[in-house]
Amino acid sequence: MRKLEERILKDGVVLPGEVLKVGAFLNQLIDTALLKEMADEVYSLFSESKITKILTIESSGLPFATAIAMKFGVPMTFAKKHASANMTDDVLSAEVYSYTHKKSFKIVVGKEYVRPGDRVLIADDFLANGNAIKGLVSIVESAGATVEGAAIEIEKSYQGAGDEIRKKAVRIESLARIASMENGKITFVS
Amino acid sequence: MRKLEERILKDGVVLPGEVLKVGAFLNQLIDTALLKEMADEVYSLFSESKITKILTIESSGLPFATAIAMKFGVPMTFAKKHASANMTDDVLSAEVYSYTHKKSFKIVVGKEYVRPGDRVLIADDFLANGNAIKGLVSIVESAGATVEGAAIEIEKSYQGAGDEIRKKAVRIESLARIASMENGKITFVS
Repeated sequence: MRKLEERILKDGVVLPGEVLKVGAFLNQLIDTALLKEMADEVYSLFSESKITKILTIESSGLPFATAIAMKFGVPMTFAKKHASANMTDDVLSAEVYSYTHKKSFKIVVGKEYVRPGDRVLIADDFLANGNAIKGLVSIVESAGATVEGAAIEIEKSYQGAGDEIRKKAVRIESLARIASMENGKITFVS
Repeated sequence: MRKLEERILKDGVVLPGEVLKVGAFLNQLIDTALLKEMADEVYSLFSESKITKILTIESSGLPFATAIAMKFGVPMTFAKKHASANMTDDVLSAEVYSYTHKKSFKIVVGKEYVRPGDRVLIADDFLANGNAIKGLVSIVESAGATVEGAAIEIEKSYQGAGDEIRKKAVRIESLARIASMENGKITFVS
């Protein structure tokens, strides 16, 4: 999505360790006009998929997932990173390793929120090592529901995890795919 | 908002300890049709306030804040409960005591995301003891910005914190105000 790529070039900041900071418009301060255009784009990509539910993971995936779910007119649910005190019922869970926090944690969704027969579109802000998406795919499958695909704001394509997941027949649509951030210069997959 | 009250009566579950579980439609699985109507209602309440920014706190306030910000056509930002590895710049912060987790934690917003002159509408799913809202008000004030008010999905009015904050000239608009949950029976402030 050209508009997102242009915005990343304009306002994204590459920090040491190939960390891309997009807080100013995408995941700390959210430009809702851009968010709406991204949701419209995701809708056009998956409009034939008879999506019944959007699934993301807290926290930074929530604005994108909310905007997409409003566009599709379907419910949105999200995996929590800790079991909540209110979560009394049986849960669907998966283990996810976080490179940011250097530890594994459990992601959890109440069983009643992803049901057999659901056609689920996964949404998240970033796809880097792919672990969060793999965990969400595992949760959907363990519910007896179908993964129709995953919509990602920014994929760090050079890490290879997106293509690895695509080989498992999961359709991944990333609105911006970064080919390289070497020397602080961002280039996109053309 | 009658539609929200009716939905709480239909699908809300009162758990021991006066915990109101609304996961099935409001904060774990989000009914986006209801969410859109709530955002429309908030817009009608604050349409004269020249809002420039919506501020919430992760995670469960994010869908509501996103929907409101899209309706107003302004950016949304949110306080994090932990300093993030990516948060390199100066931050605005406040201490908040959580009864759920029985500890104080710091809530943090990057200084660049709430600016002097901003007219901020705070949004959150619940107002119970009011500590989160007080923390967010403190953050806005420390930024030199103005709190135009707070939009809440559900206020536990019987706890009194909402009225205590209103006395400090903060306009709080709660879409459902619970007067009592005694014996598992929910009644609203009429």
